[in-house]
Amino acid sequence: MNPLTSPLLTDLYQLTMLQAYFAYGMRETAVFEFFVRKLPPHRNFILAAGLEQVLAFLEQLRFDQDELAWLEQSGLFGKDFVEHLRGLRFTGDVYAMPEGTVFFPNEPILRVVAPMPQAQLIESRLINLVHFETIVASKAARSVLVAPDKLLVDFGLRRAHGAEAGLLAARASYVAGFSGTATVLAAPLFGIPIFGTMAHSFIQAHDDEAAAFAGFAKVFPNSTVLLIDTYDTEAAARKVVALAPQLQRAGITIKGVRLDSGDLAAHARDVRRILDGAGLTQTTIFASGNLDEYRVRDLLAAGAPIDGFGIGTSLVTASDAPYLDAVYKLQEYAGKPRRKRSTGKATWPGRKQVYRHYRGDGMLEHDVVTLEDDVQPGRPLLQLVMKDGKRVDGFAGFDVLRNYTKGQLATLPQHLRELDTSSEPYRVEIAPVLRELAAKFDRQTASVQHSASSDVLVV
Amino acid sequence: MNPLTSPLLTDLYQLTMLQAYFAYGMRETAVFEFFVRKLPPHRNFILAAGLEQVLAFLEQLRFDQDELAWLEQSGLFGKDFVEHLRGLRFTGDVYAMPEGTVFFPNEPILRVVAPMPQAQLIESRLINLVHFETIVASKAARSVLVAPDKLLVDFGLRRAHGAEAGLLAARASYVAGFSGTATVLAAPLFGIPIFGTMAHSFIQAHDDEAAAFAGFAKVFPNSTVLLIDTYDTEAAARKVVALAPQLQRAGITIKGVRLDSGDLAAHARDVRRILDGAGLTQTTIFASGNLDEYRVRDLLAAGAPIDGFGIGTSLVTASDAPYLDAVYKLQEYAGKPRRKRSTGKATWPGRKQVYRHYRGDGMLEHDVVTLEDDVQPGRPLLQLVMKDGKRVDGFAGFDVLRNYTKGQLATLPQHLRELDTSSEPYRVEIAPVLRELAAKFDRQTASVQHSASSDVLVV
Repeated sequence: MNPLTSPLLTDLYQLTMLQAYFAYGMRETAVFEFFVRKLPPHRNFILAAGLEQVLAFLEQLRFDQDELAWLEQSGLFGKDFVEHLRGLRFTGDVYAMPEGTVFFPNEPILRVVAPMPQAQLIESRLINLVHFETIVASKAARSVLVAPDKLLVDFGLRRAHGAEAGLLAARASYVAGFSGTATVLAAPLFGIPIFGTMAHSFIQAHDDEAAAFAGFAKVFPNSTVLLIDTYDTEAAARKVVALAPQLQRAGITIKGVRLDSGDLAAHARDVRRILDGAGLTQTTIFASGNLDEYRVRDLLAAGAPIDGFGIGTSLVTASDAPYLDAVYKLQEYAGKPRRKRSTGKATWPGRKQVYRHYRGDGMLEHDVVTLEDDVQPGRPLLQLVMKDGKRVDGFAGFDVLRNYTKGQLATLPQHLRELDTSSEPYRVEIAPVLRELAAKFDRQTASVQHSASSDVLVV
Repeated sequence: MNPLTSPLLTDLYQLTMLQAYFAYGMRETAVFEFFVRKLPPHRNFILAAGLEQVLAFLEQLRFDQDELAWLEQSGLFGKDFVEHLRGLRFTGDVYAMPEGTVFFPNEPILRVVAPMPQAQLIESRLINLVHFETIVASKAARSVLVAPDKLLVDFGLRRAHGAEAGLLAARASYVAGFSGTATVLAAPLFGIPIFGTMAHSFIQAHDDEAAAFAGFAKVFPNSTVLLIDTYDTEAAARKVVALAPQLQRAGITIKGVRLDSGDLAAHARDVRRILDGAGLTQTTIFASGNLDEYRVRDLLAAGAPIDGFGIGTSLVTASDAPYLDAVYKLQEYAGKPRRKRSTGKATWPGRKQVYRHYRGDGMLEHDVVTLEDDVQPGRPLLQLVMKDGKRVDGFAGFDVLRNYTKGQLATLPQHLRELDTSSEPYRVEIAPVLRELAAKFDRQTASVQHSASSDVLVV
């Protein structure tokens, strides 16, 4: 059983509900929508990501022999139900905002239309995938906004929450505009550019720091980035300068140096001066070490001569907002709108579309959430991406996707680009038809819930 | 290439360093230790977890044909180096604190002794595994401490950071003392008890809430937990009461009800009264919905009659401390102690052991970190768990492990059990021999680094 693809990577209640749906033949069409209830702290917008992984998951969804055998012997489920699961595939439709779309609370970014058991079963993993890539893309976009012309590299694998988080964080940050990642596997699996320098252990394993530099440079004559903070940053920079002429004679160019600790702005200025003083003006300075978008912003504001940033833990854990209040809720079943009214968690019923309106200068103005059949002015954001369980289009490729994201970020007005929470949140209007539908549903539910006699219900 | 096992799930610099080690024949024994530099906010102790996954990873470590082919065609590595990787296996020793051990900053909890390339290559994934399970176990332990007699269930899969995070969070919280998880796959893969109720969508898919309750109960006659907050919690509780006699006649007992929104303490009291008033004193109340250890503590302090808690997002993302300053650092190479002196990131050199001292009442008093060969009084915490790449013992099983954790948590003095940060942090002494070794290393390094003439180094 592979956790990355297994339908058993789900909550137990999905399977118990499926057994109940099976028992009562409840296979009518269900409509679920994924949306975020509210902005997390420190965010003025959210950037959608993860759709690609969801579509791949849906296309391959099936219970294999091991999984069926385990379900049967677990004693939790009936034999006929387990047999029924053998044939289960995802045959529904999916509508979604493209990855890289800027979105806001209460806006569905993904809608699933499928027979109830299918639409229900996929809930846990669908949220798991979209939620995670979206929090990382949203975090990464903030660094992209403050350092649009710098090399930004994901350095987070080691403190990502498991293997898939490390891998998908590389993808999500690349979707958002990062230059690449240090995670090797992202290259063969996704085609994402990979970057790497050297670690302190390499320096430490040598008795002499300069010997470590020279040795490393010789093995990688065209791409050497030397880590210079193991003992004394400025002293190490002078060793690099001393080595450079000999390396040059051997055809080796030191591409850059990396700072990983201390006062990065001060070290960068000192090191830049040392390098420039020796004519090494093309040698770049790369910084890492507990960085996030705030520190990057402050370093650049301080004029630190840094060419690139490795951003790790804060990025891949989205540390200041490690989760979204993201949900996947039933909006319609068997042709009837559905709604949950739980305190603080009420939902808008029905199949919805989001229309985006722009100001004269092309910046975002406001969005309108309405019913799918209430066609409105503005640009509709949800598109059909899967029909009858088959993708409408293949993956367009990262060039197209990253260009789309860039265009999306370019429409953010200044107050939404700031790292601090804006006092003027983006306006998302709930259309009158949606409010009317919700009110109508509430009236009907109240009458049904109060009039139902329960004595006809059992057995 | 399977992200969960692939050696390419690593940072690029590990592979570039390996190529340099290969070029220079640097295969001497390296000693790396994993430790946490400082406590994160809101934590008075850390609970070790993830060792089992690390040992499994090391035992199966190898590059498969696809991975070797990709490395070769990448253009980043030499053909002979890639050929060399074909035979790479982990043949080293591992010393570790058992999972479930309470530990503190600057204490190595895991030591790897292996030829340098092996010890280096595994860094990223080793940290990735231990770091994540440890943050979740540490978070989970806090709920266990405030609600030792309650049913505690991991509900976090959907907002965990990817598939492996969901799965390992189930494991780590179970290690810490949770009763189980909602994540189905944790049962077949780990043998962890699974729990599930029903979701709002099941209720919503019915026109009548009571019909949904009755229908679900009929399918699960012995284990029904009904979700009662979809529309009106107290009204739903009265529906449960009205249904109960009929269900009973059909041989069906309602095991419990679940609250998922609103003022949980008030609802729990109202619902308890409604249930008890109808003689349903055995029907339990289970609560969920944005819970964490603080809310659990407060609900219990308020006397809320709640029998169990589903804790999700806050647990699996360790949301108030989603990462540790956890590192894996070279402490010795080729028989010589090694040390990094980077500002704010200096390490203690050499192979270390941690000795624990207890007060007269069995509570923790203080720990001493010293060199392995400086045998001291107190209980040594690091044990040999892998020898020459083979595990010393198999997994002892969760009964043993959970019992061990319970014993560990029982040794926490009151000020370390509090949810808020203690003003009196636990005392971890660095032994004099360790300080002397560090000072000696610094003197030697300074003389080597300053005397080295770099003109002998290149080519």
